[in-house]
Amino acid sequence: MRSTSSSPVGLHRVTDPAGAALPQAARAIDPSPELWPDEVRIDVETLNLDAASFRQLSEKHGGDGDAVRAEVLDIVRTRGKMQNPVTGSGGMLIGTVAEVGPQSPLGLAVGDRVATLVSLSLTPLNITDGLTRWDGRSERVPAQGTAVLFGRSIAAPLPVDLSPDLALMVMDVCGAPALVARVVGEYLDRGQAPTVAVLGGAGKSGSLSLAAARDAGAARCIGVVPVEREAVLLRDSGLADEVVVADARSPLGLSDAVAAAGGPADVTVVCVDVPGCEQPAILATAQGGTIIYFSMATSFSAAALGAEGLAADVRMLVGNGYVPGHAELALDLLRRTPAVRRLFEARLAH
Amino acid sequence: MRSTSSSPVGLHRVTDPAGAALPQAARAIDPSPELWPDEVRIDVETLNLDAASFRQLSEKHGGDGDAVRAEVLDIVRTRGKMQNPVTGSGGMLIGTVAEVGPQSPLGLAVGDRVATLVSLSLTPLNITDGLTRWDGRSERVPAQGTAVLFGRSIAAPLPVDLSPDLALMVMDVCGAPALVARVVGEYLDRGQAPTVAVLGGAGKSGSLSLAAARDAGAARCIGVVPVEREAVLLRDSGLADEVVVADARSPLGLSDAVAAAGGPADVTVVCVDVPGCEQPAILATAQGGTIIYFSMATSFSAAALGAEGLAADVRMLVGNGYVPGHAELALDLLRRTPAVRRLFEARLAH
Repeated sequence: MRSTSSSPVGLHRVTDPAGAALPQAARAIDPSPELWPDEVRIDVETLNLDAASFRQLSEKHGGDGDAVRAEVLDIVRTRGKMQNPVTGSGGMLIGTVAEVGPQSPLGLAVGDRVATLVSLSLTPLNITDGLTRWDGRSERVPAQGTAVLFGRSIAAPLPVDLSPDLALMVMDVCGAPALVARVVGEYLDRGQAPTVAVLGGAGKSGSLSLAAARDAGAARCIGVVPVEREAVLLRDSGLADEVVVADARSPLGLSDAVAAAGGPADVTVVCVDVPGCEQPAILATAQGGTIIYFSMATSFSAAALGAEGLAADVRMLVGNGYVPGHAELALDLLRRTPAVRRLFEARLAH
Repeated sequence: MRSTSSSPVGLHRVTDPAGAALPQAARAIDPSPELWPDEVRIDVETLNLDAASFRQLSEKHGGDGDAVRAEVLDIVRTRGKMQNPVTGSGGMLIGTVAEVGPQSPLGLAVGDRVATLVSLSLTPLNITDGLTRWDGRSERVPAQGTAVLFGRSIAAPLPVDLSPDLALMVMDVCGAPALVARVVGEYLDRGQAPTVAVLGGAGKSGSLSLAAARDAGAARCIGVVPVEREAVLLRDSGLADEVVVADARSPLGLSDAVAAAGGPADVTVVCVDVPGCEQPAILATAQGGTIIYFSMATSFSAAALGAEGLAADVRMLVGNGYVPGHAELALDLLRRTPAVRRLFEARLAH
């Protein structure tokens, strides 16, 4: 155990630029397995690369799995973390708690099987098996090595009643339903049951957001999907009161579709990972309404200038992936909502 | 007057890509002065280019004013609006109402002297004097020509008691104090007088945000500035209870400074136009607190992933430049707060 002082946000492990950046913004961090007193060491079992990161690597190397593996190993060796230098994103990992520093506030115990809910882009990571069990052709990376959690970090125990793959898929997007539930709750506290529209309603974060909205007491849930095939899936699920097909990038296409389904929405949730949905989402939202942007393709300036340009009095929230209790809420929604579980399991089967 | 149908958000004037984008996102719009029945025509008096746009043009042409003027004329001629293709931003204009369509909902009358509060980046603009009275060396552009306001647009009468330059400078940033006042009001409604920290507190939007926070009932106002010279200015103004010097990009530097001034903040307002303030602002904010990002240098993904990576339960708002009554609120704050007025007038004198 190290005796120098440590920072709950991991500043003590930043090596480049030393001490001048947080681990996520740093070029390199120290991944060594020896702990500071407030840290936790995890024996790694599986990495799950962020979808955008894996796609970039795979396209760069023309689908050559060996080249992808070599680059992932090189990134982890040089940066001390698995953060794609192009996309900036990381992913998550599953593993077993191997050591708990005496001052760790996380409440973990040696032997706990956990998923880390902070991004790999800031998690000290040391790979010891050369990733020999991974063919470089999927986001799921069997791996041996160690990872470190800081004092201020998040890890959730893997549930015993769900497969690790299913649990990981749910936890990966658990911030969305938790924030939707909170926002709907705020409307109810003011005596208004809101109409909620979810763009990308048949996707992972979208379907959980629809389930969360209804569960929290929304008056009406509208699911927006880009193609009829997804509309059939979502209609069959019963997760939405209305399902409409519309291009979320089309200003009038989207607002007309949402209006026809009982909109405009009081709360619009953007779960579509394509650029250009900022102003259409604003137009589909009632004056005084709220938009929650969960898509990483969101442009800050397009949202800010877009609302001003439309004289739209809307509250726009950056979709924070962390809400206390988010993993439990999402897993519980999945357990209680067979339709959500079926959508997720269908994805696993592909 | 045209007889075809029109859209309150101006879709009918989009020529490239025709009908498939809103005016702000469009490559080109139709700037012709003939009105649709819900539009208003303005005789232009002065354009005020967005600071980021003017800086880009001036640097591109090495300060050659004639070249800058030629490029502005070319942009307006080809796009039908003054939207800098690199920065995407526009600016504002001052002019006199020349014609009001019979179906215009804006409440304007011929002869009103107004400032437009929607961006030039979406305003149909036709320049007729070749900008011959402008030397291409300042953001303030004397101009002759016409501009058009759509049905859903915003224009504010110029106050008679303030110089147009002063009024324009205030209206340019009026969204910030209005949203700060609203957020502080929400805290008070819940029985909590918040501590508010404003990053960039000596600037235009920053000083108005400090004044708005105190006026709305904040318990404590902390102004953060990057250099001692600005600290002296802000301390002399009395707009903040505490003034601290800190680099808003420094994670610990900022949070330590805000903590020493009575933080963490319940509400942090980011008015600093440099990249990299997202995570530092999160660290300077109390759990359960609110961050309002007004800087156009804000990165959506840095904010979203940054909060998750710090396990920070913070509400993050995209600074919407439109809040009903924002211009009146900001002008009224300036009138009632001599310290704000002095800061603004000192800028005009430079």
